[in-house]
Amino acid sequence: MALKAKVLYDFHSENPGEISIAENEVVTLFSEEELEGWLEGENSRGEAGLFPASYVEIIRDHITSNNNGFSLTQTQVQTSYTSSQPHRGFGADSSSFHTSQGSDDDWDDEWDDSSPVANVPQGLSSSPPLHPVATSLPGRGSSQQQQAKSSATVGRNLNRFSTFVKSGGEAFLLGEASAFVRDGDRICVVMGKHGPEWQEDPYPFTCTIDDPTKQTKFKGMKSYMSYGLTPTHTNVQVNRRYKHFDWLYGRLVERFPVISVPHLPEKQATGRFEEDFLSKRRKGLIWWMNHMTSHPVLAHCDVFQHFLTCGADEKAWKQGKRKAERDELVGANFFLTISPPSVPLDLQEVESKIEGFKTFTKKMDENIIVVNTSINEFGRKQISGFKKEYQKVGQSFKLLAQAFELDQQVYSVGLNKAISYTGESYEAIGEYFADQPRQDLDLISDLLDIYKGHLANFPDIIHVQKGALTKVKDCPKKEGELHDRCNIISFATLAEIQHFHRTRVRDFRSQMQYHLRQQISFFQKITAKLEDALQRYDDDQ
Amino acid sequence: MALKAKVLYDFHSENPGEISIAENEVVTLFSEEELEGWLEGENSRGEAGLFPASYVEIIRDHITSNNNGFSLTQTQVQTSYTSSQPHRGFGADSSSFHTSQGSDDDWDDEWDDSSPVANVPQGLSSSPPLHPVATSLPGRGSSQQQQAKSSATVGRNLNRFSTFVKSGGEAFLLGEASAFVRDGDRICVVMGKHGPEWQEDPYPFTCTIDDPTKQTKFKGMKSYMSYGLTPTHTNVQVNRRYKHFDWLYGRLVERFPVISVPHLPEKQATGRFEEDFLSKRRKGLIWWMNHMTSHPVLAHCDVFQHFLTCGADEKAWKQGKRKAERDELVGANFFLTISPPSVPLDLQEVESKIEGFKTFTKKMDENIIVVNTSINEFGRKQISGFKKEYQKVGQSFKLLAQAFELDQQVYSVGLNKAISYTGESYEAIGEYFADQPRQDLDLISDLLDIYKGHLANFPDIIHVQKGALTKVKDCPKKEGELHDRCNIISFATLAEIQHFHRTRVRDFRSQMQYHLRQQISFFQKITAKLEDALQRYDDDQ
Repeated sequence: MALKAKVLYDFHSENPGEISIAENEVVTLFSEEELEGWLEGENSRGEAGLFPASYVEIIRDHITSNNNGFSLTQTQVQTSYTSSQPHRGFGADSSSFHTSQGSDDDWDDEWDDSSPVANVPQGLSSSPPLHPVATSLPGRGSSQQQQAKSSATVGRNLNRFSTFVKSGGEAFLLGEASAFVRDGDRICVVMGKHGPEWQEDPYPFTCTIDDPTKQTKFKGMKSYMSYGLTPTHTNVQVNRRYKHFDWLYGRLVERFPVISVPHLPEKQATGRFEEDFLSKRRKGLIWWMNHMTSHPVLAHCDVFQHFLTCGADEKAWKQGKRKAERDELVGANFFLTISPPSVPLDLQEVESKIEGFKTFTKKMDENIIVVNTSINEFGRKQISGFKKEYQKVGQSFKLLAQAFELDQQVYSVGLNKAISYTGESYEAIGEYFADQPRQDLDLISDLLDIYKGHLANFPDIIHVQKGALTKVKDCPKKEGELHDRCNIISFATLAEIQHFHRTRVRDFRSQMQYHLRQQISFFQKITAKLEDALQRYDDDQ
Repeated sequence: MALKAKVLYDFHSENPGEISIAENEVVTLFSEEELEGWLEGENSRGEAGLFPASYVEIIRDHITSNNNGFSLTQTQVQTSYTSSQPHRGFGADSSSFHTSQGSDDDWDDEWDDSSPVANVPQGLSSSPPLHPVATSLPGRGSSQQQQAKSSATVGRNLNRFSTFVKSGGEAFLLGEASAFVRDGDRICVVMGKHGPEWQEDPYPFTCTIDDPTKQTKFKGMKSYMSYGLTPTHTNVQVNRRYKHFDWLYGRLVERFPVISVPHLPEKQATGRFEEDFLSKRRKGLIWWMNHMTSHPVLAHCDVFQHFLTCGADEKAWKQGKRKAERDELVGANFFLTISPPSVPLDLQEVESKIEGFKTFTKKMDENIIVVNTSINEFGRKQISGFKKEYQKVGQSFKLLAQAFELDQQVYSVGLNKAISYTGESYEAIGEYFADQPRQDLDLISDLLDIYKGHLANFPDIIHVQKGALTKVKDCPKKEGELHDRCNIISFATLAEIQHFHRTRVRDFRSQMQYHLRQQISFFQKITAKLEDALQRYDDDQ
């Protein structure tokens, strides 16, 4: 009997070699063996080709469908592990792995938040395959219980979907986090001139991203784009696909609950080999890389270093990948790695700072939408309207010159040429206008995109900090471990906010400067063109 | 019994002090005495005020309504004389003053012209009051007969509406023109480097036109605008109203059949005191004056000199005015004043030159319409669209700065101010764009207007020359007076064409140069504004 699989989600083929499959359809597999997350088979319409392994469930005799309604087999779990689908912010979908519902009556519902997706960045929600992420390792049950006792006066949140809960913030605050933290994993928050900040990166580096090149595999049946990355601290180029970025992103989000991991440029299903899209994505990836390398914590974390430095050795790559996926210092345990400065924090002041930042992000989010709309519209107008107007005037000057050329008088020739040249100059200026948005406005738009991503991250970050703060305020005891742990969360949050502001000021200053310099040279180019045209009128006086 | 008048044409009051009157209405006059062409009275609705004397006919006992359907009284004839209505091209409207029909059989009706408006410039046609202009003096009958005999082999044109006939070209060619030409009236055509041309003006001058000032009369009941003109050869300012220009134009058109008299800027009935209109009209009058003073023939003719130099002495003005209106050297007689160069003219070559010029004017006329449309549209876009786009971007930058200002960090303040300033700069650039068309595009438009007028004149001029040429070709005799007279017409026409080209090359060269210089300084102004904005980003690094 041929091996069959049931389709779990609709998949629409996007590229040659792929086939479309529909939910509940039964497909025939040519082999059980996956090729980088893809299976080869035939759908019910008789089409043969590739489809994502994670979209199907292999039909076997020993299916264990009595496991709380979950019909996942071990095979599928493994399949999902290797799929190219990224993790979604704070392991939002890991709720399917809550195993001990109803076993702890002390949980209250003060963190109740029935709309957890509201703060999930657009375009990253509701993707079908679920990732089995082990947020509670079996071995940790005992220590969890043990820690819980020490903070028995503070209740647990009943809402499993709250970011505070999902991020591990609550677990950490309640002393439930426990992991071995090596010195190399330690993240220091120090007191800077303007408040808490991440300890400065002692080994700063940057990383260039080359134009992507098209690669093929499966004898040309599948093709993909590969980006050459060259970090300055190794100066060795590595090749990465978008799906690698995507995988990395998932790891980082899981790993750093109160750090704003820059969003990747949007994934695009169709036309993903088109030049415009590739150029835009590359620009987006450059911004992304810039934000990664300039973040003292993100830049030096293991998974990112693995991503940047692991060469073509497939085995080494897989090893590092597995290591990252098994990293214990995710979620709640992340907070264990933080070394706060030994200064007291005024909770009132922290609260007001956070409140101010919340107002700030809201306003910035609103206003950059307006900026983006304006500059996109402005760009569009330059490409169409402005160009058209200058070209129409240019053409009409050329028509004038053409009429004048009918005059045979010697003294008229120079003028005719000059007017004709002026017409051409106006046409050229029209082209300048059409080319300009790509040189400056588009870059502002790219910058705004990366910040839109950060602004979408902060509500969750703020939520974690506020959750901790509220818990502490409810606690009658004003000192102690709970307080210290809340301070750690606050220090981390404030350091991240500080980092955000610094990066923002740096980025917007340099981008505005760049924009103005581009505009200045644009108008100087126009002026030079007109001066050139003007000179033509002197030639034959 | 009160003095009554019958209204001949509808008149709509445009200004305070005036009353509207309707055709066939009977109005009561307060006095028979006119005030500069206006009468005071009361209309049938009981409104009292001023209306144009030429629009009404005073009802008297001795009305002579038996005169071939003409019901004009002597009073009305006089009234018409002082009206402000101009003469219309080529004495077109003089037909109503055929007074002695049937009484002098020798007079033919070659001046008959029932469709005088055909060649009249736009906006100047179909105004009701007719002007009594004595184009055929009674004493000329005999000499006309005598001359006609000498060219009996060449037939007369049957088409009385032909410009050739109306202009006097035919009459001159047939030797019917006769007048005393003083040396001072002599107009010389010389052979220049590029063909026949008007003898260069030995006493060139220019004339400035000041901003018009509002004057009132009749105790403030009527107001008008007066322009101060200062010709450089007298350096004495004289004041002239638009109606004086209009009167002068009428004289010139009548006086110079093959010279392209520049058209006056369009007359505008309503809103004639509005700043925009006045500014546009003044610019038009400046161009007009420029074309008048740079024409060797027009610049020094008596009527124009009278217009430019006669002071506030009302009597002297009227004297000069009457003299001009009685000038014998109009129409056919104009050609008597021309002294051609003593070189032979190749009629074939003349014909081809004229043909070429005809093609030229047609093309130029077509193409300047395109130019005018393009630059007007371009100007409109700058005032609306371009301004709006820059201002929208400016406003959105300001919004960005406003959002950023919510951040209290010290290191953010400088950037916020710089972005806000950038926003203001963009708004200012929007204003620059909106202001610019007035500085340059509008001037091209004004230039095109004056050339549109010339181009409208040339078909008539060419027609006269061609009429003469055709007549000569029909004539079996290859030499003689007919030939000489045709040469005179050809020399004058070619000189005028030459003058047109020279002026055109001069005007368009200087206007295009001016335009480009304006554009250059416009873009430099933008660049400076952006450089200023860019500097703000350095202040607080």
